[in-house]
Amino acid sequence: MLTMRAFLLFILSGWISCILSAQQDIFQRNEIISPEINEDGTVTFRLMGPDASEVTITGSWMSATGLMPLPQVMQKEADSLWTHTTEALPPGFYRYSFSVDGVRTIDPSNAHAIRDVGSISNVFLIEGGTAGLYKVNEVPHGTVAFRWYYSPGNNKTRRLAIYTPPGYENSDTRYPVLYLLHGIGGDEEAWLGSGRAAQILDNLIAQDKAEPMIVVMPNGNVAQEAAPGEGSNGFVQPTFMLPNTMDGKFEETFIDIMNFVERNYRTIGSKEGRAIAGLSMGGYHTTYISRHYPNTFDYMGLFSPALNVKPGDHPSAPAYQDLDEKLKAQLDNGYELYWIAVGKDDFPILYQGIQDYRKELENLGMEYVYRETEGGHTWENWRKYLSEFVPLLFK
Amino acid sequence: MLTMRAFLLFILSGWISCILSAQQDIFQRNEIISPEINEDGTVTFRLMGPDASEVTITGSWMSATGLMPLPQVMQKEADSLWTHTTEALPPGFYRYSFSVDGVRTIDPSNAHAIRDVGSISNVFLIEGGTAGLYKVNEVPHGTVAFRWYYSPGNNKTRRLAIYTPPGYENSDTRYPVLYLLHGIGGDEEAWLGSGRAAQILDNLIAQDKAEPMIVVMPNGNVAQEAAPGEGSNGFVQPTFMLPNTMDGKFEETFIDIMNFVERNYRTIGSKEGRAIAGLSMGGYHTTYISRHYPNTFDYMGLFSPALNVKPGDHPSAPAYQDLDEKLKAQLDNGYELYWIAVGKDDFPILYQGIQDYRKELENLGMEYVYRETEGGHTWENWRKYLSEFVPLLFK
Repeated sequence: MLTMRAFLLFILSGWISCILSAQQDIFQRNEIISPEINEDGTVTFRLMGPDASEVTITGSWMSATGLMPLPQVMQKEADSLWTHTTEALPPGFYRYSFSVDGVRTIDPSNAHAIRDVGSISNVFLIEGGTAGLYKVNEVPHGTVAFRWYYSPGNNKTRRLAIYTPPGYENSDTRYPVLYLLHGIGGDEEAWLGSGRAAQILDNLIAQDKAEPMIVVMPNGNVAQEAAPGEGSNGFVQPTFMLPNTMDGKFEETFIDIMNFVERNYRTIGSKEGRAIAGLSMGGYHTTYISRHYPNTFDYMGLFSPALNVKPGDHPSAPAYQDLDEKLKAQLDNGYELYWIAVGKDDFPILYQGIQDYRKELENLGMEYVYRETEGGHTWENWRKYLSEFVPLLFK
Repeated sequence: MLTMRAFLLFILSGWISCILSAQQDIFQRNEIISPEINEDGTVTFRLMGPDASEVTITGSWMSATGLMPLPQVMQKEADSLWTHTTEALPPGFYRYSFSVDGVRTIDPSNAHAIRDVGSISNVFLIEGGTAGLYKVNEVPHGTVAFRWYYSPGNNKTRRLAIYTPPGYENSDTRYPVLYLLHGIGGDEEAWLGSGRAAQILDNLIAQDKAEPMIVVMPNGNVAQEAAPGEGSNGFVQPTFMLPNTMDGKFEETFIDIMNFVERNYRTIGSKEGRAIAGLSMGGYHTTYISRHYPNTFDYMGLFSPALNVKPGDHPSAPAYQDLDEKLKAQLDNGYELYWIAVGKDDFPILYQGIQDYRKELENLGMEYVYRETEGGHTWENWRKYLSEFVPLLFK
């Protein structure tokens, strides 16, 4: 290691000669450990801020509903170190951010952060229980690829994320496909980042709890080519106010995605080899895509679906024509599983929309599985729902 | 759009009833525009911080050397908005961060940020000139995949990034391969993030300036399975102090990567179809890998190579045996291009190491191309070097 030390030494001498400098700041070092997951399950956060007047922390563990709680003030210690220690936390994948004198910031000592819509938060994982599914374990790993496909229906080349299971590249096997849809403001990266979809699939497959499958994560905002920063419109800032988001266009042009996948991957290519699921807006999309193509999917997963939003404002959208008849056709054509999950503490209007939808299904005699959990409109729930839904598929 | 508005309205009503709250904070909105690229080429940064006493900004445009400059103090306007406007900036891909009362932070109004080693910085792009190569343009896009391969030499399953050119999946063509290596503290994501490698390849290929090629971006730290957070050791914090980083092990086990690539991709599979290049430590690796396999690569690219580091501290490493003989063998076996680039303002010791190496090559009669640019040990230079090197390959 002497050579390494020598290399670092010349970096360090660069530091000394250039006060407060570091080459491209990639050589920045930070001796603060934050977060520190303590043996008793509590977590300690630390921030060096001698000149800060107030530092607060907000984290996803503070609220079961997903509504961000009031920030908690961190303690200033004698040496300018701000600290906060949580109660013991259950296993999970958590997000948090600091606020320094009123400005929201990430933890400079934690290099792990995820963008979710327009905000970047730090993440950490407490192992154990179901969180074991969210961890990268020493198991065979699938491949995650970002690919571009041409959508004739949108006259646009668009980006999607695709997970192929371990062994895909070295076999002739045909695999079933799960189409997995994000929520409003999300994009093709959401299920991989906040959703831990690749880890969940790797682990469930390794534990023999899920069939090896392809997971396609498209971008449900047809106004976009790709996630913000990945399209030709440059580093636009993420927004909820995209046009054509819940107007039937994504549902109508979903065939372009399926065609691409089935022409480019070794899929089973029939109904028993196709599932579709999504969270929130993606649950809404799941409903209307599976109706619009009523003999295409054997498995539907609606995770906290935004069924309170009604397609009635877009009466001319092809995907929204004859909705009752399409649902009836879906029933008559048969399916294996119609799975609906929601948290008790979700938005009341969304929760109510789901209850209304259940009645609609029951009136029609459509079988479905209803799963009600603790918590609200949160990634904690969506990771859990994915972990429960995937083992039910393609059996 | 009424339905969309209705959906947003219930989100907003959630906001009103829960002061300072937002569901998972994904619904956070921020009306501040920052950065704003002005028509005259200046850039304005804005931060809302009524309670902050001092806000500073540090950006990669402030220094041609890559040594981070002294932060510049931002101006506080009457309405609590801190602002800073740069001079007119040339086209480029830039990084920056703020400091709020002494705490380094990213810009909460800019969702675009990249981790480089242990620090996360915001990014933006000013179009024009060579920066056009760094932009996502409306051209055919290659596929970027993260794959895992087994390395017998390290007895470890490891992650790499791989770019396959547009059309790869729908042809029988065999493609040449560029192995592209990161610097110290980097990993398999560095060239894609800070290096804009996928965009550079897409654009050069679309402009017919480069041959379609596969680009393999491995992880050069053999102690790691994967980038921090992507391996089974969890969300470890990035560090320079990894063991076995420049001790010959990566060079020795590079054959595992080549075997994986050639068995899993349609490669040309002979010397004229292989190039290897890297920045800093990756330039060092390029030197010793291409010597250790002295009849394997027709194209070598050493970008700001850390040749001041000598392999003499690891006299027993197989990759470092008979180094002079291996270099002579590489010469005798022939090659198309040995390309060395460095910035005038790089670390003096590194710059000197390159000059010493040039003499060594000249003494041996090895032809090489030497490219000296402005600037220092920076991603600005490494993106430029990649953009210049790739068009020289496989012609």
